[in-house]
Amino acid sequence: MTKETCIALLSGGLDSATATALAIEKGYKVLGLSFDYGQRHRKELKAAKQLSNHFGLETHHIIQVDLSMWGGSALTDKNQKLPSDGVKEGVIPNTYVPGRNTVFIAIGLSLAEATNSKKVILGINAMDYSGYPDCRPDYLDAFQLLANLASKSGREGKSTELWAPLIDLSKVQIMKEAMRLKIPINKTWSCYSGNDEPCGICDSCRIRNEAMKKLNHSNL
Amino acid sequence: MTKETCIALLSGGLDSATATALAIEKGYKVLGLSFDYGQRHRKELKAAKQLSNHFGLETHHIIQVDLSMWGGSALTDKNQKLPSDGVKEGVIPNTYVPGRNTVFIAIGLSLAEATNSKKVILGINAMDYSGYPDCRPDYLDAFQLLANLASKSGREGKSTELWAPLIDLSKVQIMKEAMRLKIPINKTWSCYSGNDEPCGICDSCRIRNEAMKKLNHSNL
Repeated sequence: MTKETCIALLSGGLDSATATALAIEKGYKVLGLSFDYGQRHRKELKAAKQLSNHFGLETHHIIQVDLSMWGGSALTDKNQKLPSDGVKEGVIPNTYVPGRNTVFIAIGLSLAEATNSKKVILGINAMDYSGYPDCRPDYLDAFQLLANLASKSGREGKSTELWAPLIDLSKVQIMKEAMRLKIPINKTWSCYSGNDEPCGICDSCRIRNEAMKKLNHSNL
Repeated sequence: MTKETCIALLSGGLDSATATALAIEKGYKVLGLSFDYGQRHRKELKAAKQLSNHFGLETHHIIQVDLSMWGGSALTDKNQKLPSDGVKEGVIPNTYVPGRNTVFIAIGLSLAEATNSKKVILGINAMDYSGYPDCRPDYLDAFQLLANLASKSGREGKSTELWAPLIDLSKVQIMKEAMRLKIPINKTWSCYSGNDEPCGICDSCRIRNEAMKKLNHSNL
C-alpha cells in the first residue's frame, strides 16, 4: 500500500523537527517545506536542509515569500533590536512577525492540496513559547475550520488536518521526545541571531536552555 | 487628520480594481499588493501596475510566492489545459489554484498588520464566479475569525477587517460600479491565457463578456 503523505513545515528548529519525526514514526511519507521569508539569517534554512537529509525526505521545498518587504518585526527588520532581557508574561515581543504563521500554514495547505496530503505537520506549542498569538489552540482550531471551507478537497469532506502534536507539551517534554526519536539536536537551530554560536540571551535560546537545564536535573 | 490605510489585493482584473476604487471613494489611503505566484503569464501583473498608477497609489508591493513549484492547477501548471467549454454548475474547474486565496489573504493580513492598516480589500464575489470554494461568504467569515485570533492587533481588539464589497454583486452590477467609478476597463485583464488579446473562451472571458452583453442590453 502506498504510504499516506504529510507536509512538514520545517523551520530548522527543535520543535518542527520533533513533530516531523513523530509523523515519520507513525508511518507517513513526509514532504518538507521551509520558508525563505527574509529572516535575519540563513542558518535556520541550512539547519532545515540538514534535518531534511537526516530524515531522508525525498522532497524538501524552500519557497520564497519575503515578509521583510514590510518588516514589522525584529526578525524581518534588522533595524529593530532583538530583545535580550527574557520572556515577559502577557507581552507579545517584537520577534512576533505579523501574519507569519498564517502565511506559512496557508502555503502548507496549498502544497498539501496539490499533493493530496492528509496533514500539515506543525511544531507549534502553546506552553513554552514567546506569547505569540498565532501559537495558541484557538488559533489552530479557527484555521482548521478555514481549511475545511477553503479547499476543493475540504468541500468534498477530505480536508487537510492541521496536526500540531506538540501543542500541549512543555519544552522539557518536547526535548524528551526529541531524544527518544533520536533527533540530532545539535543540528537544530533555535537562536534568533545568526552568529556562529547561539547567543544564549534571546527568548528562543532562553526557553531552550532553560528546558535543557531542567532536563539535566530530572531523571530521564 | 491622517487618512486611514487599507491594503488592496490587486490582481489586474476588473473586480479588485473596482473594490479598490470603492475604498478610495470612501477616503482611505490604499496600499497595493500583487502576487507573482507563478501564474501562466505576466499580463495580469502589468495590468495591476497600470491600475496602481491610474489610482495614484504611493506604494504597490509585488511579492513573489511561487505556487507553480507544486502546480495543481491549469493556472500554475502549463501542462494542464485551460478549460474552454464554459462554466459548469457545481463543478470546481481546474483553474482553481489550491490554497491561492488563503495564501494571498494571509500575506495581505501580514502587510496590514505591519502597516497598521484597517482593512484588506478583496475583489471576491460569490455570484458570478467559477465555483471556487475560496470565494464564498462562509469562507470569508471563517477567515475573519482567524484574522481576529492570529494577530497581535486582533488580540488587542483592533483586528484587520476583510472587506469584500462586491461579494453579493453580479458581474453586471460590478461593471456598472466600475463605470460609475471611471475604472479604465480596457486596462484590466481577466483572461486566463496570456495572448495579445483576451481568448474569449476561458471561464473568466465568458463571465466578463456575458456581463458586458447584458450591460449593453440594459438601460444604464
